[in-house]
Amino acid sequence: MRIARFSIDGTVGFGVVEDPADGGEPVLDIIKGHPFAAFERSGRRVPLDQVRLLPPVLPSKVVAIGRNYAEHARELGNEVPEVPVTFFKPSTAVTGPGDPIVFPAISSELHHEAELAVVIGRLCREVPRERAREVILGYTCANDVTARDVQQREPQWARAKGFDTSCPLGPWIETDLDPSDLAIMCTVNGEQRQLGRTAQMIRDVEDLIVHITAAMTLLPQDVILTGTPAGVGVLRPGDEVAVTIEGIGTLTNPVRARG
Amino acid sequence: MRIARFSIDGTVGFGVVEDPADGGEPVLDIIKGHPFAAFERSGRRVPLDQVRLLPPVLPSKVVAIGRNYAEHARELGNEVPEVPVTFFKPSTAVTGPGDPIVFPAISSELHHEAELAVVIGRLCREVPRERAREVILGYTCANDVTARDVQQREPQWARAKGFDTSCPLGPWIETDLDPSDLAIMCTVNGEQRQLGRTAQMIRDVEDLIVHITAAMTLLPQDVILTGTPAGVGVLRPGDEVAVTIEGIGTLTNPVRARG
Repeated sequence: MRIARFSIDGTVGFGVVEDPADGGEPVLDIIKGHPFAAFERSGRRVPLDQVRLLPPVLPSKVVAIGRNYAEHARELGNEVPEVPVTFFKPSTAVTGPGDPIVFPAISSELHHEAELAVVIGRLCREVPRERAREVILGYTCANDVTARDVQQREPQWARAKGFDTSCPLGPWIETDLDPSDLAIMCTVNGEQRQLGRTAQMIRDVEDLIVHITAAMTLLPQDVILTGTPAGVGVLRPGDEVAVTIEGIGTLTNPVRARG
Repeated sequence: MRIARFSIDGTVGFGVVEDPADGGEPVLDIIKGHPFAAFERSGRRVPLDQVRLLPPVLPSKVVAIGRNYAEHARELGNEVPEVPVTFFKPSTAVTGPGDPIVFPAISSELHHEAELAVVIGRLCREVPRERAREVILGYTCANDVTARDVQQREPQWARAKGFDTSCPLGPWIETDLDPSDLAIMCTVNGEQRQLGRTAQMIRDVEDLIVHITAAMTLLPQDVILTGTPAGVGVLRPGDEVAVTIEGIGTLTNPVRARG
């Protein structure tokens, strides 16, 4: 099931994205309440192209993992870490499908990093590996946009990876998906830049949930970014960057200069 | 004015802490609404010792600064950084006055770090230095509790400084205060461990607001931790750690083993 968050006529809600049996345009079947508990469908259906898609969740925090694909670690001259490199992106960094990625005042070098995002479905802490799948609502696409110039100057990455619009998420949450071997791709202006498979992750999704929740509570709507495959590179104002993950869909964002 | 967040009989609210003119015990004058906009007093007054004080704010994010006192940077063998070392503590790390600091599963070495905390009063971005004071609601005490063993193993500090209970805040927000030269002290079981003055900060409060908001939006209730003076050291289960800042008050927390 694909669950989207949307706005229409000033109202914000969640809906299930469906492809009509007759092969027409996808529709959004609006749900009552939210997808973090049992929910009913409202019966109201709207063509998907008539709503504005929002970030599929409003996370209290995004916990991100660096250097989780060996080939990407090496392309930036880094060792493959013994313990997953773990950092936060704040809620103010989150933006939705179609929303612009905007250069912050502190950077003139933004990089794309296509990543599988895990959406947490329930409050959890010290989750054992065998129960990790239970705390997941589903998966979406993410772009861990990075101010590479700032990252090279500052040892902690809060500004380099936490600036406004540095965390596009979307287009929706796919709840029925095995995350263990999915193709993940990034294009810029239609040209392929990154291509990998989630099977190349050094630590898989279950390992990351164990690793993070050994230290901290995750809340419903929190998001884990699972690292990026090789091929990261620059984004320029005017570019259109797209993250596509097999079984989920495509997250597309324009890139804009500041101001 | 001292603004506290509290619960009493299952209700949560804000109130103004006042010392009666007759020299009796402090009382809480409960306010209507919240202190991030114009508010009225309700006229209901409760003795302070009859409420439970909560963290004075529920921040969407805590932005923390490392190595902002030269003597502390040196005591851990670090250089004084050219750019402020900037990291996040998540909302799930925040805890209130009197609440226990609990060892996480991943650490056996917790350190106290007494810090002046700045509470943001309004949404802001790219704040110029001369307007920095305008975005501040007030100041409170913080303990940037750090799993030093984890910090030494992991290059990014999300787990070392972001575990549950790693961010005690309180006891209340002092709104009428010049932060530029305040005594800041940490005691453990009544014994002095850290002592400094905020005048020793390498970057002052205004500089830090400029630095952070050059990259990201701050929201009302967000908190900035401004770094710790020299004298950090271990906390053990059973300890009681207290952060006292001149003009604000004392934030006290017991320390507990996990489980």
